Amino acid sequence: MTNPTSTTTSQEHPLYVESSENSGHTTGEQLQSVRWSEDDVLELLDQRALPNEINFLRLTDVQDVWQAIYDMVVRGAPAIGITAAYGVIIGIRNDQVVQVEEWLRQVEQHAAYLATSRPTAVNLFWALDRMTARAHELANTEVPLEQLNEQLLQEAIAIHREDEEICRQIGEHALTLFSDGMGILTHCNAGGLATAKYGTALAPIYLAKERGISLKVFADETRPVLQGARLTAFELQQAGVDVTLICDNMAAMVMQKGWVQAVIVGTDRVAANGDVANKIGTYGLAVLAKAHNIPFYVACPISTIDLNTPSGDLIPIEERHEKEITEAFGKRTAPEHIQVFNPAFDVTPNELVTAIITERGIVKSPYHISLKEIFE
Amino acid sequence: MTNPTSTTTSQEHPLYVESSENSGHTTGEQLQSVRWSEDDVLELLDQRALPNEINFLRLTDVQDVWQAIYDMVVRGAPAIGITAAYGVIIGIRNDQVVQVEEWLRQVEQHAAYLATSRPTAVNLFWALDRMTARAHELANTEVPLEQLNEQLLQEAIAIHREDEEICRQIGEHALTLFSDGMGILTHCNAGGLATAKYGTALAPIYLAKERGISLKVFADETRPVLQGARLTAFELQQAGVDVTLICDNMAAMVMQKGWVQAVIVGTDRVAANGDVANKIGTYGLAVLAKAHNIPFYVACPISTIDLNTPSGDLIPIEERHEKEITEAFGKRTAPEHIQVFNPAFDVTPNELVTAIITERGIVKSPYHISLKEIFE
Repeated sequence: MTNPTSTTTSQEHPLYVESSENSGHTTGEQLQSVRWSEDDVLELLDQRALPNEINFLRLTDVQDVWQAIYDMVVRGAPAIGITAAYGVIIGIRNDQVVQVEEWLRQVEQHAAYLATSRPTAVNLFWALDRMTARAHELANTEVPLEQLNEQLLQEAIAIHREDEEICRQIGEHALTLFSDGMGILTHCNAGGLATAKYGTALAPIYLAKERGISLKVFADETRPVLQGARLTAFELQQAGVDVTLICDNMAAMVMQKGWVQAVIVGTDRVAANGDVANKIGTYGLAVLAKAHNIPFYVACPISTIDLNTPSGDLIPIEERHEKEITEAFGKRTAPEHIQVFNPAFDVTPNELVTAIITERGIVKSPYHISLKEIFE
Repeated sequence: MTNPTSTTTSQEHPLYVESSENSGHTTGEQLQSVRWSEDDVLELLDQRALPNEINFLRLTDVQDVWQAIYDMVVRGAPAIGITAAYGVIIGIRNDQVVQVEEWLRQVEQHAAYLATSRPTAVNLFWALDRMTARAHELANTEVPLEQLNEQLLQEAIAIHREDEEICRQIGEHALTLFSDGMGILTHCNAGGLATAKYGTALAPIYLAKERGISLKVFADETRPVLQGARLTAFELQQAGVDVTLICDNMAAMVMQKGWVQAVIVGTDRVAANGDVANKIGTYGLAVLAKAHNIPFYVACPISTIDLNTPSGDLIPIEERHEKEITEAFGKRTAPEHIQVFNPAFDVTPNELVTAIITERGIVKSPYHISLKEIFE
C-alpha cells in the first residue's frame, strides 16, 4: 500500500496529480476538496498542507482512501462521507468478481474497512450504509454484473451532489439576510473544504460572490488549531472574496468599529431548544454580537439538529490535549507543566441565536417549536 | 563590546550568572526581572528566552546594558527605566575621572547614550532624567569625587524601590476587592516581570499568595504575541500561584461556567474620562465580564493616567506587522498575501470599568471627577 503522507510533487510521486506552492493569488474559483475526475479517479485536496501548498492527491486504491481519511487529508463530516462513498467504488473496481453475490460481499467488505478510518464520524457511516443499501438494491435487479460498478458510482455521485445542493440551499436562505456592502464575521471553518461545495456558514458568501454582491468578511483565526487562518481565510481568498484575518480577541474591536453587520457560524450539534454547540469561541462571539446589536446566525443542514437532545447542557464537550495550546506550531510557547483548560467546543444558549438557517429555510425563536416544525 | 544575545550557559559565557532550563517547577518565590547584585553588578532576567529557559544576564558594561534594552532582554516600562538607571552607574563606574565636572559630563553622556536604546519608552527618559538631575545635585555638594558613584547608585536603588512600593500599594488596594477562593481572570502581562516586583494587575495575586489567600487565576494566552502564555503563566507558576492557561476565545466559557469572580488587567494609558487603552482583547473581556455580572478592574500607577487626553477615542492605536498573526510560531499559519487587521491595543469605554486601582486607592465612576481628585 502506498502511503500518501508525504507532500512531494507529482513528478516524484504518482499520487499527486497537481501540486503547487500557494502563491496567495486568487483564482476566483472555489477550490473543491473532493473531486471525481473525468478519468474516474478520486482526487482529494490535501488539507494538511494548507494554506502553504495546494496538493491534490489522486487515489486509485481503497487503502489509500482509508489512509487519506485517517490522516485527515480530508476533514469535515460531509466531505468525509463523500470520500468514503467514492472509496467503495475505488475498492470494488479493483476486484475481479465473477458473480453478483461475490460483488455484493466485496462492496460490504470495502465499506466495513472504510468505516474503521474515523470511528467517530457519523456522516462516514451514513454514507457507507447508503452505498451498501444501494448495492443490495442493485444486486436484486436485472443489472448485469459488468454494469454494477457504474450504477453504484451514481449513488456516490448522488451523495456528492445532494450535499452540494443542501449547502447551496442553505446559502440561498442565508443570503436573504445579507445585502451589498455588509461586513460578515465568521469563526472556525464551516466552508466548502468541509463539504461538497459552498459549505454551510460560508455558503451565502460564495453565492454573493457568484452574484456580484459585495461582502467584507472577517475570519477569526480560531485558536488553538487555527482553522480560520489555515482554512477559511484560504478558501475565501482562493475564491476572490474580500477576507481579512484577525485574532479571536480582535472580534470585539472589529464590532466596536461598526465593521460587522452579521455573524455567521456553523455548528456541530443543535439541541431541540436551539442551543448550539460549535467550536470554542463561538459563545463569546454570540455574547459580543448581542452587546453590539449584531445578528448572530447559525447555518447547518437539518441533519445537524438533534431533537433527541433537549438542551445544550446535555451535549458533551470534548477537552483536547494541552499541547494544542502550549506547543501548537512546533514551538513551545508556554511553561512546562502549566495547567491548561482546552475545551474543543462551547454551547451558545438559544436566546443569543438570532436565527438558524437550514436547507429548508430560516428558523427563529421559539426554537423548541420551530425546530420541530422544520422536520414536518 | 560583548554581545549578550546568545543564550549560552554561564560556563561558556561570562555574562550569564545563572542559566537553567525551566523545569516548570515552582520555587514559591517571585522571579525578579532586574536585580542589583551583592557584588554591585546589574543582573537581568533574559525575557526573550522565557518560558523555556531562565537565564540571568550579568552586565558590567554600559554598552551591554544598551544592547539588553534594545534587544528586549528586559521589557515593561518600569523595568526598562530601572535598568537604565543602573546602566548609568555601570557606565560611570568604568570611567577614570579626575574631577567632578568631568564626572558630571560622563554621567550625562551615558544617560544620553542609554536614552537611544528604546526611543519610545517614556519611563526610560524619566529615569535617566532623574539620574542626571541627581548627578547635578551631587556635583554641587561637598561629596568627594570618590563617593559620587556610590551616592548616585542610591538614586537608582530609590527608583527601583519606589516602583516596588507603588506596585505593592496597588496590590494592597486591589486585594481588598478579592477574597479567598475567588477565580481571577487576567489578560496579557501586567506582572512582576514588567516592574520592580509584584506588577500591577498581578500585584494583588502575589500579595494574596504571601498571605495564604487562595486565588485561582486564569491567564489568557493573549494572541498574537502570547504574553499571557509566555510571561504571565510563567511568572505565576514560578511563584506557586494556581494558574490555568487558556486561549483568548475560552474566556467566555470560563465565565459561563461561573469560574471567574473578577477580571483584572493592566493598562497602557487611562484617559481623563476613565476610558482604558490596553492590549488587544481587553475590550472584549470587559464586554463579556459585564454580560456575566463579573467586575472588571484596571490596575495602574497614577503615572499611567493621562488627564491631558479627554477620552479613549483620542488615544492612537498602533497597528503592528501582519506576520505577528500569520507566522507567529515560526511557521506560516495563514495564506500568503492574506489581508490582516492587527491592532496592538483596544479601548475599553469607562462604563465597562468597575474600578481603577492605583497606589493611592480605588477610583470609581464618575471617572472625569474621581481621576482628577486622585492627583490632588
